[in-house]
Amino acid sequence: MLKESGLPRTVTLDTEKAELVIIDQTLLPNELKLLRLIELDEMCDAIKKLRVRGAPAIGVAAAAGLYCLAERYDTKNEDEFFQKLKADADILNATRPTARNLSWALEEMISCAESHKGKGVVAVKSALKAKAKDVEEQDVAVCKAIGEHGAALLKDGDTVMTVCNAGALAAVEYGTALAPVYVASENGKKVAVYSMETRPLLQGARLTSFELTENGVDTTLICDNMAASVLAQGKINAIFTGCDRVAANGDAANKIGTYMLAILAKHFDVPFYVCAPYSTVDFSTKKGEDIIIEQRSGEELRSLWYEKSMVTKKARIYNPAFDVTPAELITAFITERGIKKPHEL
Amino acid sequence: MLKESGLPRTVTLDTEKAELVIIDQTLLPNELKLLRLIELDEMCDAIKKLRVRGAPAIGVAAAAGLYCLAERYDTKNEDEFFQKLKADADILNATRPTARNLSWALEEMISCAESHKGKGVVAVKSALKAKAKDVEEQDVAVCKAIGEHGAALLKDGDTVMTVCNAGALAAVEYGTALAPVYVASENGKKVAVYSMETRPLLQGARLTSFELTENGVDTTLICDNMAASVLAQGKINAIFTGCDRVAANGDAANKIGTYMLAILAKHFDVPFYVCAPYSTVDFSTKKGEDIIIEQRSGEELRSLWYEKSMVTKKARIYNPAFDVTPAELITAFITERGIKKPHEL
Repeated sequence: MLKESGLPRTVTLDTEKAELVIIDQTLLPNELKLLRLIELDEMCDAIKKLRVRGAPAIGVAAAAGLYCLAERYDTKNEDEFFQKLKADADILNATRPTARNLSWALEEMISCAESHKGKGVVAVKSALKAKAKDVEEQDVAVCKAIGEHGAALLKDGDTVMTVCNAGALAAVEYGTALAPVYVASENGKKVAVYSMETRPLLQGARLTSFELTENGVDTTLICDNMAASVLAQGKINAIFTGCDRVAANGDAANKIGTYMLAILAKHFDVPFYVCAPYSTVDFSTKKGEDIIIEQRSGEELRSLWYEKSMVTKKARIYNPAFDVTPAELITAFITERGIKKPHEL
Repeated sequence: MLKESGLPRTVTLDTEKAELVIIDQTLLPNELKLLRLIELDEMCDAIKKLRVRGAPAIGVAAAAGLYCLAERYDTKNEDEFFQKLKADADILNATRPTARNLSWALEEMISCAESHKGKGVVAVKSALKAKAKDVEEQDVAVCKAIGEHGAALLKDGDTVMTVCNAGALAAVEYGTALAPVYVASENGKKVAVYSMETRPLLQGARLTSFELTENGVDTTLICDNMAASVLAQGKINAIFTGCDRVAANGDAANKIGTYMLAILAKHFDVPFYVCAPYSTVDFSTKKGEDIIIEQRSGEELRSLWYEKSMVTKKARIYNPAFDVTPAELITAFITERGIKKPHEL
């Protein structure tokens, strides 16, 4: 499916050159351009400016990025090496606050490095390379497993709705919320998708519509405010969303608009599934209200995509990037370990 | 309040020159430009392209526009005059299908003309001029009355949420949904507003934020998909929306996104008010599903405001301009005759 489309991996580690390779998603759908990153500031910039985005992809990029940085540390002194490594990991970790996978992947890398402490810098670098590639391949396997569990919920001819982009472009391949659609398609089931455009950054318009149609999936784009109208017409069999961080009680932070969609799903009695690897679950955060929600610049609403300002300077703008859907509105989580009710996580 | 802002009437009939004068709303908030229209095709274009929009404003514009056309009919023959008048009214009426006020205002004009039949073309023209001005002044009075009834529901310090633009720019002055805010402000109550940007045409971003802040109202703009997040935070005391057509059973068609907002209001137990003059009620339409919903071009999502296309050509786009909120989700209608439960209309 995804191989047929000819699209490269969204994020990958070039182990030979020790370079982090990403699709620059800010240029889609108009241009498919790969960036090769080796400097910390360009990696941070790529994450902050959403050249690479999506909770799993950010995690993979941070792991690969940290290795690429470490590979170039010009020291044989382990203490100095670890000092640099932790400092760079902290800087990468601070780029975006909400997605759990970012800190998870960096913790995996640090922990891997520490388990090789004492073997010398060369051995640690080698372990980090293997670990970064492992994080990447694990993401592919996990997303595929999510896809297989999710596809079992879909019948031939079904139509699903999704918000933002939790597809191949949000991970390495397959994605989370779109993985069930891709696996169902591979299994010969025809599944159509309604994609919400997802203001203000238009991930649904620019990215989800692009990757789905490149993979031959029948895709209809709507504005975020049209979801109720489409659901009322009985067109949707299930809603699949991704997830940036799940609290221990099953509350789930995801792209702004997800909470709205969960309330609409309840109103129209449509099942609402959150697709997420276990690396997204943050057992140290008790409940959703403890999750830090990233607030982004109002200029994203006012002028980001436009030639002129669309909003008077006199108006305030509120621009939270995420919202938290309470566990009771979530039919189930689709994880690599199967389909779990919120309390079963 | 509105006079202090220095903003001109959104739509007005210049009786001396027999010209329809409108603010070109496609240029806001960057430029405040008045257009003077005397030709049928430029009037139709102005309505279709939303240079003038908002159910009440379209009605007033159609009435004034029809008079301006009639004034220039070069015939003394009453039969010929009425033939032209009805043909032009039909063309104006076909510009947009959903708003009830458009056909209501044209029916008022035709009925006025017919009641003067036999008195000669000059007398009919004179009657039409008076009627068009009456439709305009009646709109001001009706919106003021809606504002007074609605303001009684607001306390000092309250915050309301609204979608699209149902303010002064959607009528002649005051508007419908924003009239209670303006009247409350005139009465010394401080009321803040959360304005949903209202994709794809951004009436909330471009127009509502503009007119509210020009009138000194504390205004916060959000994307449509942020409404649930704001409501969940308990920031909103009431939701006020406008309306394009009310069916006899109280189902109400309004800007796409209104239905979503009504479901969210119910979920968060926030009162949901539809502000509308009686000219918006269509007793000949039994229920909401009989209301014709205007479908607009997908290019409004794909490329309208942007330098580049934001959506792959391979994706379908669904772009209904309105949705229908079922009566059971509407706390009450705020009309010029007072506050009415849906079944009391």
